[in-house]
Amino acid sequence: MSNWILQYKDWDTEEHPLREALCTLGNGYFATRGAMEELKANDFNYPGTYLAGGYNRATSKIEGKEIVNEDLANLPNWLFLTFKIKNGKWLNLEDAEILEYLINLNLKEGLLERKVKFRDKENNETTLISRRIVSMHDHHVMGIEWTIIPENWEGEITVRSALDGNVKNKGVERYNDLNNDHLDILDNGKFDDNDIYLLSQTKQSKILIAQTSQLNVYQNNEKVNAKIKVGNDDKMIWHDAKFTCSKLQSVRIEKIAALFTSKDNAISDPLNEAQQKLSEIDNFYDIYLKHKIAWGQLWNHSNFKLETEDNSVLILRLHIFHLYQTLSKNSIEYDIGIPSRGWHGEAYRGHIFWDELYIFPFLNLHMPHLARALLMYRYRRLPRARYAALKNNCRGAMYPWQSGSNGREESQKIHLNPKSGRWIPDYSNIQRHINAAIPFNVWLYYQSTHDKDFLASYGAEIIFNTALFWLSMSEYNPKKDRYEIRGVMGPDEYHTHYPDSDNPGFNNNAYTNFMAVWTIRCALDLFTILDEKTLSELTQKVGYTNKDVEKWKILIKKMYIPFDSNGIIMQFEGFDKLKDFNWKKYTKKYGNTLRLDRILEKENDSPNNYKACKQADVLMLFYLFSSEELQKIFKDLGYEFDPKEIPNNIDYYQKITSHGSSLSRVIFSWVYARSNRELSLNNFNEALMSDVKDVQGGTTAEGIHLGAMAGTIDIIQRCYTGLEMRDDILWLNPRLPEEFKQLQMHIRFRSHWIILRITQKKLYLQFERGWANPVTISVNGQKREFASNDSAEFDLK
Amino acid sequence: MSNWILQYKDWDTEEHPLREALCTLGNGYFATRGAMEELKANDFNYPGTYLAGGYNRATSKIEGKEIVNEDLANLPNWLFLTFKIKNGKWLNLEDAEILEYLINLNLKEGLLERKVKFRDKENNETTLISRRIVSMHDHHVMGIEWTIIPENWEGEITVRSALDGNVKNKGVERYNDLNNDHLDILDNGKFDDNDIYLLSQTKQSKILIAQTSQLNVYQNNEKVNAKIKVGNDDKMIWHDAKFTCSKLQSVRIEKIAALFTSKDNAISDPLNEAQQKLSEIDNFYDIYLKHKIAWGQLWNHSNFKLETEDNSVLILRLHIFHLYQTLSKNSIEYDIGIPSRGWHGEAYRGHIFWDELYIFPFLNLHMPHLARALLMYRYRRLPRARYAALKNNCRGAMYPWQSGSNGREESQKIHLNPKSGRWIPDYSNIQRHINAAIPFNVWLYYQSTHDKDFLASYGAEIIFNTALFWLSMSEYNPKKDRYEIRGVMGPDEYHTHYPDSDNPGFNNNAYTNFMAVWTIRCALDLFTILDEKTLSELTQKVGYTNKDVEKWKILIKKMYIPFDSNGIIMQFEGFDKLKDFNWKKYTKKYGNTLRLDRILEKENDSPNNYKACKQADVLMLFYLFSSEELQKIFKDLGYEFDPKEIPNNIDYYQKITSHGSSLSRVIFSWVYARSNRELSLNNFNEALMSDVKDVQGGTTAEGIHLGAMAGTIDIIQRCYTGLEMRDDILWLNPRLPEEFKQLQMHIRFRSHWIILRITQKKLYLQFERGWANPVTISVNGQKREFASNDSAEFDLK
Repeated sequence: MSNWILQYKDWDTEEHPLREALCTLGNGYFATRGAMEELKANDFNYPGTYLAGGYNRATSKIEGKEIVNEDLANLPNWLFLTFKIKNGKWLNLEDAEILEYLINLNLKEGLLERKVKFRDKENNETTLISRRIVSMHDHHVMGIEWTIIPENWEGEITVRSALDGNVKNKGVERYNDLNNDHLDILDNGKFDDNDIYLLSQTKQSKILIAQTSQLNVYQNNEKVNAKIKVGNDDKMIWHDAKFTCSKLQSVRIEKIAALFTSKDNAISDPLNEAQQKLSEIDNFYDIYLKHKIAWGQLWNHSNFKLETEDNSVLILRLHIFHLYQTLSKNSIEYDIGIPSRGWHGEAYRGHIFWDELYIFPFLNLHMPHLARALLMYRYRRLPRARYAALKNNCRGAMYPWQSGSNGREESQKIHLNPKSGRWIPDYSNIQRHINAAIPFNVWLYYQSTHDKDFLASYGAEIIFNTALFWLSMSEYNPKKDRYEIRGVMGPDEYHTHYPDSDNPGFNNNAYTNFMAVWTIRCALDLFTILDEKTLSELTQKVGYTNKDVEKWKILIKKMYIPFDSNGIIMQFEGFDKLKDFNWKKYTKKYGNTLRLDRILEKENDSPNNYKACKQADVLMLFYLFSSEELQKIFKDLGYEFDPKEIPNNIDYYQKITSHGSSLSRVIFSWVYARSNRELSLNNFNEALMSDVKDVQGGTTAEGIHLGAMAGTIDIIQRCYTGLEMRDDILWLNPRLPEEFKQLQMHIRFRSHWIILRITQKKLYLQFERGWANPVTISVNGQKREFASNDSAEFDLK
Repeated sequence: MSNWILQYKDWDTEEHPLREALCTLGNGYFATRGAMEELKANDFNYPGTYLAGGYNRATSKIEGKEIVNEDLANLPNWLFLTFKIKNGKWLNLEDAEILEYLINLNLKEGLLERKVKFRDKENNETTLISRRIVSMHDHHVMGIEWTIIPENWEGEITVRSALDGNVKNKGVERYNDLNNDHLDILDNGKFDDNDIYLLSQTKQSKILIAQTSQLNVYQNNEKVNAKIKVGNDDKMIWHDAKFTCSKLQSVRIEKIAALFTSKDNAISDPLNEAQQKLSEIDNFYDIYLKHKIAWGQLWNHSNFKLETEDNSVLILRLHIFHLYQTLSKNSIEYDIGIPSRGWHGEAYRGHIFWDELYIFPFLNLHMPHLARALLMYRYRRLPRARYAALKNNCRGAMYPWQSGSNGREESQKIHLNPKSGRWIPDYSNIQRHINAAIPFNVWLYYQSTHDKDFLASYGAEIIFNTALFWLSMSEYNPKKDRYEIRGVMGPDEYHTHYPDSDNPGFNNNAYTNFMAVWTIRCALDLFTILDEKTLSELTQKVGYTNKDVEKWKILIKKMYIPFDSNGIIMQFEGFDKLKDFNWKKYTKKYGNTLRLDRILEKENDSPNNYKACKQADVLMLFYLFSSEELQKIFKDLGYEFDPKEIPNNIDYYQKITSHGSSLSRVIFSWVYARSNRELSLNNFNEALMSDVKDVQGGTTAEGIHLGAMAGTIDIIQRCYTGLEMRDDILWLNPRLPEEFKQLQMHIRFRSHWIILRITQKKLYLQFERGWANPVTISVNGQKREFASNDSAEFDLK
């Protein structure tokens, strides 16, 4: 059971912000932080309750420059729950003496339990047990149950429960100069003493948010007719329940709340619906029971069983759990993208990046409906991306590097180096490679689901548009007799421009050029997959011509990829001419060299001058593609690429990577999986700990790293199993780390549910009863067709 | 070409309201009436621009009783466009002498053109040519182009273009006592002289609506720098462009407008997006071109070619056209149901009924994505239907007869008989048969698409819930040793209760009982289609038990169906005991006996006393099911039902049906198709004309009848072709009316596009190149498998 419970036993105020992020509850519709919140009645300014897609755009100026837009708005705080004994002060744990403390985050049931025994200044000893859920069954519903045990006192107590609109976005300290006030409170009041409401609206996006809440008191499992008094001010509404406690007799408080917004479907208006919903709920147990069933169904197919000697499986489950806090069946119906920090904190302001590249593989193989919904998020922003391309003198679609609600580019143009206190230019928006990540996600979704209707109706349009964008980005260089892509950045954000140039970007970033070729190949493949009518409609919609198709065919043969003289793929043209970096010196001086960019900028130097990477662009290729695929694409490009060169490339970049991105360890774990199982496992374990141990020192408290979390799951799911989908075949080629005795998991492939059980020596697979067409699976090269109910065992070499 | 253009050549003020409904433009997102609107600058109170799903709930009291809720709100009028010559009056055609007049509604291009030459009171003769589109390409965009030709004058003119919030829901006279003011105007103003905006909000549902508009003037194809002045008041904003005209020199005005609402996805806030959109549009021609391409792609697969000697094909295309005004690819992303009157008028207040039963077959076989989106509209309201069942002491889900935005029952409880002026009780909400129509639509969608993912994730849940509802509606009658369903109404709304009873409803309405059995059979079928995990999750979600399944199995054998002594299926138990109606007398007295209910109520009588039907419930069975299916279901029920009895049943009901519903003719055309081709064609032609000729006398002006429109298309599509989907086979068994020389159409079946060409002697079918799995087709019993690119010709007997 302990593999299902994230537990903390000590009261560690230092660690509270981190714990709050890690104990965030959500259901794909909204998320609630504040593990501590009910107990800090004196500071409600950081509830961290976010509405998925609760956008708010706030342009702020710093040093005269337009700096960022925010796309994340706090919800009014529904967690406010406190009590006082007689005429004492409202509960405040920070002033109390903590006698016992326990947090259990139950991943299996999506339940956050906390038990605290404390002594206040009046020497009253109280035990408080809190259980909290954000319903996975009905995403409009949430509840808190408190059990209060007066250990050494008795008499009147007052419980105050509130909906509090005094919320600000203050979760990330360095954003404090930005506008952090995103809510207007329009109205609050009561339906009756027991039912209160608060109606608010985000300031710019004008999303209406209606919250309602109810307070019930139970003694001896009987509802107590407590005296309830409602009070309010402009921004807050509360009700106080007064009743009498006896020593050592526990009393139970239930706070039940409902939430609707104007973005909901099937509603009349949010407030009416929130009122109605509240009237339909019986009690906390009722919510809990349905919530537990919903979680049971979720875990049914999402669970990983992993026999190891450490607690890897707990962390893996925590990662899956947090994916489902941000995205779930509840988010399918909403226009929601994948924010890189989940809904767990305000860092990156709720913006959407390319992190979904790391998240789709898990969703494709477990919740394809959800993957499809997320691709639709991108599809809806295709017109905006086409407009961006047009304004950039390109054709097709140019997706932005950072985006928010309406899909326009939201990347900051300057950013703060906290180490130097300086604002420096930020060129990250020229990371055009997101325009390969998105079609890649489309393609992988299609490979795992065979959803041709989606491909024909939506996916192909994305692929053609991005392929056309890459075409217009490609310039012919007669000297090389090759095509080039100039002025872009790769994923490695340490490198923003050439040392001797003021222009941002590089020429021929290997990753970008390769992915452009991949995107174009994918577009060309569509001609053999789709029918003429669909294709002719797409031609009209996207605007490519026969001439473009001819040029695509040339580009996949003539794109330039930079190599050095030893056959190592260069991150970009001229990378080999950069200075070597003195890793020893800096590691000695700064200990942790993860954020080299900040360190060097403070010294008036820059990573741009060195062969030093935040994460290794080039290795992304070995992460995304099998050696078979790489070889094929390079061969068509006219480059001799021997897969035997892969280890040399890894070795080259391993030495110069600082792992400044949470994603870097995932990549290294992956690329070592075949050549060096120990190094792979080490990197896997590092990646696994990155949020739980907050390895970047403080960033997790600002929001977990969803890409890295999903990446660790995917290392188990695809990397160690050698799972690959290509040419309509599911390839398996497992190689578990020696420390793993056994792995068992479900995957969904083309509407089949398949159970995989893998040991060091055997692979066992079982198709559940289903109704999809037979599929082909190849285990270590042994190809077989499988249908519903089939099973097989394979010996592994 | 004339088969694509609905044309009116005379200025007929009497017919204007009807023409406005028939010339409604829309794109699935919103619709615009007001063919006349720009020309009636003195009366802007009936623009009839509706937002799809622009709900507004307004409870009104009449004679002390709560009467209706409205779910349809007018949008601020974007059509306002007028001009005046020098210091004359603003244009008003009703005061002018009309010299020439022409309306062309171009169905192929979705373009409304109007040409009018008129002489005003100052003897100025002017020709005005108007072209208007509501873009099918970009559903946020619309435009009007005016060409003004001064025939005998010259000098300064002023063009006024406005966004007008002075709108009321006044489209249906008998609703005039209801609340008709549904909009708050929040703000209006200008971005610059050329770009104005109006921001409004629906009063109760709080949907924000942002409209922006631009005005450009062209002379000799050059943009004129007209002097533009912006003016506004609380509810309206306008800009006036002043410039000089020369005699016989045409001047072109372009009004371009954009519309966003808070229900849109991928937006920041509606007003920002509407401003941005306006800035992205070049000119009217640009909108028109893309719009035309979008329509071309729509017609590509939706067109019917029909060789007849009359203009049937024009009307059929008009019907398809109006389906796409209300529903299109643009509505897929919205939570929109099918209002029975489209977005063409205010009758039935935008509510959703069972009419979709008649509309799904066309969508399933042409736009399955759209069909799926509409089923999702129902799925989203499943929780509300479950709640309704619970409150009605039933299990499962009870969908409401009339519903609006949030899926609760919205049926009126009293209604006005305009003939008597009396308000009478309305029991229509006990038409529980909608709970069979919805699972039927799910099933038919599944049959045509084979979309098992939808079935497993959503559809099955609807089917099980409604089957469980029917179970709890069924009572065992030991006297009959049969199960009964009591206290419900069938589709025939003339019959609301027994003559001798005050309780609403009847026992054992044959249609309802049969459909309940069908729904339960469908649920039982799911056990063989779906896998165990899906089934076990559904068991948890829906709450049926093994005992329920056993009872389902009994119900499909023991449901009671009433027959009379001649083996005719009785509409309900005791129908045969009602008095015969004197059709001759009433036809003589009232001419048109279509609305017998109103006529008889005025005479203090009631159709409840007679064998007289608005539409024939029983014949619905022959419409929905093939004789093979009927025989099978009846046989399992232990009733001997010989298909040879079908003509007798038809005959029985034909004599007692007044066709008071627009759907009745569709049913009769269908059921006669095999036995009496002439009668079938007559009824088809009647159905075809029902809106174009407004056969019910005034109801079309209040909104077209979408169910009947789709029904006529479906007679061609499925009835005359004998198209049926059953047991995973597509059955074809064509029997064209003799007047039809040839029929050609596309159908989409399980992701194939198939061209069907049928003459009196041959059937030719051609699979377009595609990528779906092979399917089985049976033509007149000859079964064959077909794949991509296959074609075949069959001789018809």
